Amino acid sequence: MKRIAIDAMGGENAPKAIIDAIIKVIPEMPDTKFILFGDKEKIRQTLPADQINDQLEVVPTSQMINDEDEPVKAIRTKKDSSMVVAARYVKEGKADALFSMGNTGALLACGIFIIGRIKGIARPGLMPTLPVQNSDKGYNLIDVGANAQTKPEYILQWAEMAAFYAEKIRGIVHPRVALLNNGAESDKGDSVHQEAYKLLQDSDLNFIGNIEGNELMTGKTDVAAMDGFSGNIALKSIEGMASVLLHSLKDSLLNNGLVTKLGALMIKNAVYDLKNKYDTARYGGAVLMGVNAPVVKTHGRSNERPIYYTLKQIGKILDENLIGEIKEKFSQK
Amino acid sequence: MKRIAIDAMGGENAPKAIIDAIIKVIPEMPDTKFILFGDKEKIRQTLPADQINDQLEVVPTSQMINDEDEPVKAIRTKKDSSMVVAARYVKEGKADALFSMGNTGALLACGIFIIGRIKGIARPGLMPTLPVQNSDKGYNLIDVGANAQTKPEYILQWAEMAAFYAEKIRGIVHPRVALLNNGAESDKGDSVHQEAYKLLQDSDLNFIGNIEGNELMTGKTDVAAMDGFSGNIALKSIEGMASVLLHSLKDSLLNNGLVTKLGALMIKNAVYDLKNKYDTARYGGAVLMGVNAPVVKTHGRSNERPIYYTLKQIGKILDENLIGEIKEKFSQK
Repeated sequence: MKRIAIDAMGGENAPKAIIDAIIKVIPEMPDTKFILFGDKEKIRQTLPADQINDQLEVVPTSQMINDEDEPVKAIRTKKDSSMVVAARYVKEGKADALFSMGNTGALLACGIFIIGRIKGIARPGLMPTLPVQNSDKGYNLIDVGANAQTKPEYILQWAEMAAFYAEKIRGIVHPRVALLNNGAESDKGDSVHQEAYKLLQDSDLNFIGNIEGNELMTGKTDVAAMDGFSGNIALKSIEGMASVLLHSLKDSLLNNGLVTKLGALMIKNAVYDLKNKYDTARYGGAVLMGVNAPVVKTHGRSNERPIYYTLKQIGKILDENLIGEIKEKFSQK
Repeated sequence: MKRIAIDAMGGENAPKAIIDAIIKVIPEMPDTKFILFGDKEKIRQTLPADQINDQLEVVPTSQMINDEDEPVKAIRTKKDSSMVVAARYVKEGKADALFSMGNTGALLACGIFIIGRIKGIARPGLMPTLPVQNSDKGYNLIDVGANAQTKPEYILQWAEMAAFYAEKIRGIVHPRVALLNNGAESDKGDSVHQEAYKLLQDSDLNFIGNIEGNELMTGKTDVAAMDGFSGNIALKSIEGMASVLLHSLKDSLLNNGLVTKLGALMIKNAVYDLKNKYDTARYGGAVLMGVNAPVVKTHGRSNERPIYYTLKQIGKILDENLIGEIKEKFSQK
């Protein structure tokens, strides 16, 4: 039986959204145990005692890591926090994967310092899956912010792990891998990116060269490898622009008189289509690649739906023994 | 009389869009001479000989720099190209500013190697003005790609020049300056950004701290200073996401049946509003800050409208003696 350790306290809609997602996913994941870590009273308010069975266990904890907490300090001082105790369960072999919607930095720290790096991996990288314009396949970005300073060899390892994920979990044969850079030519970028380009070119990966920021969402590549600093900037710029545009469109639709409002009702299907296309929920959460177990994060504002998909994603990562195979791959190098 | 040297050959719509913009702007800029550099025959096809007067001069050139040309090599070998001859006019005092829609790298090279750096400026930076969500003021980003490798002191100088531009040209009193980083706290980012944060904090600027990628378009700051590599990624990610979303919306509106199509007609005003709000044309082009004259670039796909606004922007930069004052500021340091 697979066992997923779940930080029930992190995120704006915790623990309700998390518990709702688990109750929804349980029938589809009969061979999985969901271990909830958190405030017993708060969990009990949402989860009736009679629903606790051999697929659902609650481990009471007394502390919580907030978004404002300094990550490394928090995991050292809040030893009985839901996130840290959940991570320890994974470390001690009492659970197989860790899920949280809480403080991203603290979760990365739990992954790296408690669960631990895979031998042979220099630096773990954070990897979401995002939608693209002309297919429902999406693409993986790595690293989007686990590292502020990046060396070329990290980028190669991130690309290798992400390509492996794209193949095993997303079913993409011989996934295309690109390097996010400030131009198309092979000599573009600073010395880190020039060197990373060479490493990728000399690797076994299906490396298609550099891509630029404006090509990220076009579906040109299955994996975009990038330094962790500008990866973070790219991801947030994309999210920010989408949010600003959609809010502005909504404002314009509501503040341009009756005809426009009526028109807004009539284009509902198109908006639904658009929402569906750029629905990030169905790809699951961002995976910290390169640690000894799946450590997966969804946005702190997530409601039930993305959590549901993330739990299924974790189930697949465990079924496919992704981490075991990554360990094997990198120990042979 | 102000004299603007204009590369008439760069860009997809050259020379027609350029000539149309000049003819439109001439009545509003009576004290300006527009010197067109390029293929005499092609220019003459659009510009009747009788329109050539003391405000409009054509300097025939025999070569052209293409988008595919390697920038530094191109400006060294294509000595009679429209862009290089125009830059030489500025260098030799026969013109006061340079405008082009051509190869960005080559234009930067013309600015840095032909027109030359301002004494005291370590590295020129490329600075566009972009729209923001809740005002019509926009904001300046610097550097968006003139530099692949950035040192903290470059970021400080870019911020100082951009703040000066925001004040003198955009009329913003005591402009807010932020540092693009991977988190809000002062210790975020790599060593370059940590050090840049300190330099900005110790400066006379109205420094408001770090901003993240998702805050760029929100109007939180008047100037966003950034390293040239991730600035390039941020700018292109923003442009790319906007383009992908708007195309997808258009597709959805056209492919969801008659009611949706009718609705699309009815929301025209809202779409017009949105287009107006995120209209980058009216802010003019991207300025290479830190060279001895205004060197300004608009997108290679630009039509008449952004060029018209860019010529007015250049007029204002010359009227305000922006470059002269920057020279004075930095020579005193």
